[in-house]
Amino acid sequence: MIINVANDSDFSIYNIPFGIFSTEGTQPRAGVAIGDSIIDLHALGKLKVWDFDISVLETTCLNDFISLGKGVTSKVRSDIQAWLKEASSPLGLNKDILFVKQSNATMHMPVKIGDYTDFYSSIEHATNVGIMFRDLANALMPNWKHLPVGYHGRASSIIVSGQNIHRPKGQVMPKSATSPIYRPSARLDFELEMGFIIGKDSDLGSSVATCDAKDYIFGMVLFNDWSARDIQKWEYVPLGPFLGKSFASSVSPWIVTMEALEPFKVAGPDQYPEVLPYLQCQGDQNYNVNLEVGITPNGGRETVVCRSNFQYMYWNMAQQLAHHTINGCNIKIGDLMASGTISGKDEHAYGSMLELSWAGSKEIPLNDGVLRKFLEDGDVVSMRGYAESDGARVGFGEVRAEILPSK
Amino acid sequence: MIINVANDSDFSIYNIPFGIFSTEGTQPRAGVAIGDSIIDLHALGKLKVWDFDISVLETTCLNDFISLGKGVTSKVRSDIQAWLKEASSPLGLNKDILFVKQSNATMHMPVKIGDYTDFYSSIEHATNVGIMFRDLANALMPNWKHLPVGYHGRASSIIVSGQNIHRPKGQVMPKSATSPIYRPSARLDFELEMGFIIGKDSDLGSSVATCDAKDYIFGMVLFNDWSARDIQKWEYVPLGPFLGKSFASSVSPWIVTMEALEPFKVAGPDQYPEVLPYLQCQGDQNYNVNLEVGITPNGGRETVVCRSNFQYMYWNMAQQLAHHTINGCNIKIGDLMASGTISGKDEHAYGSMLELSWAGSKEIPLNDGVLRKFLEDGDVVSMRGYAESDGARVGFGEVRAEILPSK
Repeated sequence: MIINVANDSDFSIYNIPFGIFSTEGTQPRAGVAIGDSIIDLHALGKLKVWDFDISVLETTCLNDFISLGKGVTSKVRSDIQAWLKEASSPLGLNKDILFVKQSNATMHMPVKIGDYTDFYSSIEHATNVGIMFRDLANALMPNWKHLPVGYHGRASSIIVSGQNIHRPKGQVMPKSATSPIYRPSARLDFELEMGFIIGKDSDLGSSVATCDAKDYIFGMVLFNDWSARDIQKWEYVPLGPFLGKSFASSVSPWIVTMEALEPFKVAGPDQYPEVLPYLQCQGDQNYNVNLEVGITPNGGRETVVCRSNFQYMYWNMAQQLAHHTINGCNIKIGDLMASGTISGKDEHAYGSMLELSWAGSKEIPLNDGVLRKFLEDGDVVSMRGYAESDGARVGFGEVRAEILPSK
Repeated sequence: MIINVANDSDFSIYNIPFGIFSTEGTQPRAGVAIGDSIIDLHALGKLKVWDFDISVLETTCLNDFISLGKGVTSKVRSDIQAWLKEASSPLGLNKDILFVKQSNATMHMPVKIGDYTDFYSSIEHATNVGIMFRDLANALMPNWKHLPVGYHGRASSIIVSGQNIHRPKGQVMPKSATSPIYRPSARLDFELEMGFIIGKDSDLGSSVATCDAKDYIFGMVLFNDWSARDIQKWEYVPLGPFLGKSFASSVSPWIVTMEALEPFKVAGPDQYPEVLPYLQCQGDQNYNVNLEVGITPNGGRETVVCRSNFQYMYWNMAQQLAHHTINGCNIKIGDLMASGTISGKDEHAYGSMLELSWAGSKEIPLNDGVLRKFLEDGDVVSMRGYAESDGARVGFGEVRAEILPSK
């Protein structure tokens, strides 16, 4: 290896995730993360190591690069993996101009998102929410095990890790009130999710079969689907979540490719009743990605409040994509599709404050005697995720933001 | 007038709507409609009549032109209105190179839509649907009169008038069945809507007051929110409409500006209970736009099945925009916000087959003895709209598509 990478780094040679970065006084451009550094892909491209038009590496998003197809993007990744091992490679010979410290860089949104869809694919999460709002016997709606329930979300307000958010205001109906009031949300929450980025367009009127889904998925990010539970509760019947979600969602800056995640495929839960043929898949479709959520109160220490795993998902990404397109809905490069809250069976694996505090009925203990039901101003929420086997670690870094007071 | 415009033309000198067109062998570019012609805005710009960069008129969407602001776009419109009256104007002197027959042109999507939101703002429509699915006493949800209910829709599948659609397939739960089946939708429907196009960005964390909404709305189009009622019914609880809508929505190609619609402002319905302060407005906020929907069976004659009016809307656009942004959600130039189905009190003013056939319980008679509950393959649906007073007519043309069989 031409540079040192710590053993516990998310950005090992097995990973090579793509992102958009800038340094002081420079324009945003494409890079890949390795250890605590970034390789400047545009600077590398200028060395004429590849035969595609390197202007796609000099833009504010990865969409044009991704549109070159996996034949190109996979080769860039594997070239870099090879060159990282060789002192006489383009990377080894030009270390001074190609490597940037992550601590000196600002990360930007990795892609321009066209449409954003949020699924609801964790059976533990859907069951928990169903019990809270209804009862155990009626927790899951009749459709839930037959199709991956999802809804369209707001793309404009998706932001990158590090950008902080103001507590949203809105209309809520307090329990004892007879008419709604307008106030800052009193039940601000995170949702631990992962999202996948579409890497290939489909045509309107066509659908993507589960067995072809892999060709349409470029890679994955961590996703915090911020939620204002009091706004959401009053507005969401009958047309679904709207302002309770659309004030912000946060993504991690590095897109981890499906090639990097391939070694971590595992079987998903059994699906019963059997799903319709268009939702059936061959082979393992889930991924063993360890996930955790930390809360750091203003001036305090972080407490990890949730440890979950992406492998718990009932509905997998191939099924989500097949379902999304079965009516002919077209998908576009840069679209983001998120998993829905990823909860596990264990109550320490619940992926939202709503579940951890059981709708605010109990307090979640943080370090130093601090208690929380929902998020307070000054809280920093950080989500992290990584896959690991046989000493090979492929991680996502983090998605992080602080809750600022209402404006 | 330097050209003849028929008295009943939607595209009178009072209108001057913007669109994107091409002719055989030429690239898409900006134009305005006048009578049965199009004025080639890029060709006009090349005569150096304006001082902005005319490359914004040579692109495949109006977003960059709109981003110049109303100071520019209003001036372009009023310049054209003045020049249409003057033989010695740039328009009068260059008629041969500036005017194109609409019959020789292909219309394209007028804007690149970022996010698309669909409201549910007709009290007649919401009440009809509520009665069908529940009962009269519980027809409107408790939130309905307190906020303009809406949801995020799918932007990628919005198409321009003239592009036909295939009947979508999907998962449905027949009444007598115990498990869902996969089939072409048997309850394909239109929804008569109007949409407004955002003309100015707002910042994440900021909201747009009702009194400022006009600065953020560039203009309007007709909107057909195609719906597969059987798919929608099975999927929509609890997160709202998804595949029952996302297979396609159609827009009319000409964006009628708010300046052109200003003379047709009228008072909206009284709102009781009184709405929260952030939703209150000064002055008339509704628009008197006559709307109609025609169905033409394959090889048959058109029947107008619905005559409605945009002035019936309970929630107006200023309220929709204020509500949409009250949580800090940012809006972007090119975003589309649609009204929801525009139904009137009279049953001939119902804006969907769902209401006209009362959930399929009765047949709608068309010409020549043809009957319909929902749309059949080969049906052409055309929506038209215009405002008129004192001989000044401002119309939208039409949004039209044929239902093709499932692929």
